[in-house]
Amino acid sequence: MKLTPLARSLPASVPFVGPEAQERSRGAPFAARLGANESAFGPSPRVIAAIEAAAHDVWMYGDPEAHDLRAAIAAHHGVEPTNVVVGEGIDGLLGYLVRLLVGPADPVVTSDGAYPTFNYHVAGFGGALHKVPYAADHEDPEALAAKAREVRARLVYLANPDNPMGSWHTADTIQAMIGALPPDCVLCLDEAYADLAPPEAIPPVDVTDARVIRMRTFSKAHGLAGLRVGYALGHSDLIRAFDKVRNHFGLGRLAQAAALAALADTDWLAEVRARVVQSRDAIGAIARDNGLLPLPSATNFVAIDCGGDGDHARRVLAALAARGIFVRMPGVAPLDRCIRVSCGPAADMDALRAAFPGALADAAT
Amino acid sequence: MKLTPLARSLPASVPFVGPEAQERSRGAPFAARLGANESAFGPSPRVIAAIEAAAHDVWMYGDPEAHDLRAAIAAHHGVEPTNVVVGEGIDGLLGYLVRLLVGPADPVVTSDGAYPTFNYHVAGFGGALHKVPYAADHEDPEALAAKAREVRARLVYLANPDNPMGSWHTADTIQAMIGALPPDCVLCLDEAYADLAPPEAIPPVDVTDARVIRMRTFSKAHGLAGLRVGYALGHSDLIRAFDKVRNHFGLGRLAQAAALAALADTDWLAEVRARVVQSRDAIGAIARDNGLLPLPSATNFVAIDCGGDGDHARRVLAALAARGIFVRMPGVAPLDRCIRVSCGPAADMDALRAAFPGALADAAT
Repeated sequence: MKLTPLARSLPASVPFVGPEAQERSRGAPFAARLGANESAFGPSPRVIAAIEAAAHDVWMYGDPEAHDLRAAIAAHHGVEPTNVVVGEGIDGLLGYLVRLLVGPADPVVTSDGAYPTFNYHVAGFGGALHKVPYAADHEDPEALAAKAREVRARLVYLANPDNPMGSWHTADTIQAMIGALPPDCVLCLDEAYADLAPPEAIPPVDVTDARVIRMRTFSKAHGLAGLRVGYALGHSDLIRAFDKVRNHFGLGRLAQAAALAALADTDWLAEVRARVVQSRDAIGAIARDNGLLPLPSATNFVAIDCGGDGDHARRVLAALAARGIFVRMPGVAPLDRCIRVSCGPAADMDALRAAFPGALADAAT
Repeated sequence: MKLTPLARSLPASVPFVGPEAQERSRGAPFAARLGANESAFGPSPRVIAAIEAAAHDVWMYGDPEAHDLRAAIAAHHGVEPTNVVVGEGIDGLLGYLVRLLVGPADPVVTSDGAYPTFNYHVAGFGGALHKVPYAADHEDPEALAAKAREVRARLVYLANPDNPMGSWHTADTIQAMIGALPPDCVLCLDEAYADLAPPEAIPPVDVTDARVIRMRTFSKAHGLAGLRVGYALGHSDLIRAFDKVRNHFGLGRLAQAAALAALADTDWLAEVRARVVQSRDAIGAIARDNGLLPLPSATNFVAIDCGGDGDHARRVLAALAARGIFVRMPGVAPLDRCIRVSCGPAADMDALRAAFPGALADAAT
């Protein structure tokens, strides 16, 4: 066995350690699972019914063209099915996108501290990753575009709303950034949290613009993380190119059926949005009651400034984990002065509220 | 937007057109779905129950390490979890394997007419694919190894039992082939149909041998094609390398839960095996009753020699489709004198029996 030179150069890594590994290590399940920005409010009851109905058909492969799901997504966004590709979560689609656009040593730009799985894919295909810092806990669209022009980037990544900080930019700012990109550069606009953002953060979908591809997911507001369904919206030339490399039968029949049901249940989405707002408020209040600063969020999580450095925040995170609360935190300074707490139902908030003072006390000693 | 030179060189292709696309095109569903070697006998009732139970947890990502599933698979095969990687079907794992071992222009060997999705991945990573012919409707292990030595191949593909012909070799023959490979060459032994094969076709699992990686799936005998769960067994060095490139959260919670339940239900597997044997006999009888030759099969499908050339077999296939029977066929001569009919329950066999004479008559005109 002889790996390719590129494969040899890569670390055997996991972008995120799962809470299950932590549970195995601590020998007990978490009381509140608030670290992966999952929707602890659960999926729509109609989605559960759709899964139960589809369970009997699970012996059949999913439609490799995902015709019905793509048609529904296209209708939802007022575009054509040829502007929609579905895949194994945004993670899977990011991998295909990087593979299509980034060869060895090709320049790519992202923010220092933004989504690690994007970086994982860029490294995985040998791209040269350039990073610009966050500005006041926001990704910096002007700096990203300037760096893209400087290095003649093929691909730029921006999440709006942002993960891990929860911050967001307005549609005008995003549109200005797209206009400032160098030729042949594509903006990967990760809108995983779009369903939870204020309308003014989301630019109108314009699939005639080949400079941008937008990533959406059923893993967040729709509560389908356990089936991994993501999709991308973009120019038909770029969308069609995914057929060159994707795992055509990768999105199974159950996942397609569940996503179709989720998309149709707008009542449940509205309900989740309302509960997320309540939970953001609850997390903010818990932070303030403990003398800490919650950052504004347009997502289903809240970054809490723990008032110290990264080591301090890591101690808070460990102390919360020891008390049964799973949260995560940004990976680089100065973002890593924060922990990132996902929204959840009242019981989860109660568990967080109960654990927080003791965790802070543990972290201080 | 500017694709990489490699991506530009690839066709926008679909390895297989799904039956759903054919149904949309003909404006009616198929009466019998016998083309994709799915298990029309369905999944185990325990699997359905496991899916229904897991549906409520679908808001949670799957364990990225798939700890419990890998432990169960390892125990089943008498190996360690470090010898097991799970992924989005064998298709997904083939992609990762090719990516790890095959760089641009690296030589790869397969049989002319063997699994197209393997070829799709080799092309997708720029490998140089060399093909050897089938010998008497069997893949030819000696010729494959000889070609691998000649071109100094990094990777050789062999399916045992074979798809699309259903033929098989004994474990001794496979073992001899492994011994005849050149240095640093890996045999990808696709055993998707192992659960349906005679025991003497399956070599003992030896994960100390880094020259072979074995692909297994829950999509065939276990009836989970709609959730896409495959796994590979191999030397821990090679298995660990998958962590460099795989979509770590790609295998969802439902898929893991369903596969665990399927692996545990050995009674259902025995039942499916028995029904497959019955159905193979039924397909064989239908072929013979119509004056055609069914080929011996160690899988859940039967290749039927239609007695003419590829054009004739394609006419038979089209005529069956027009009569509501979905089957597929090999893509290259001389294999394409056959159609490939998947096993199914009695109702499917009745539909096939009813449609066959008319389809043959249509094809003859």
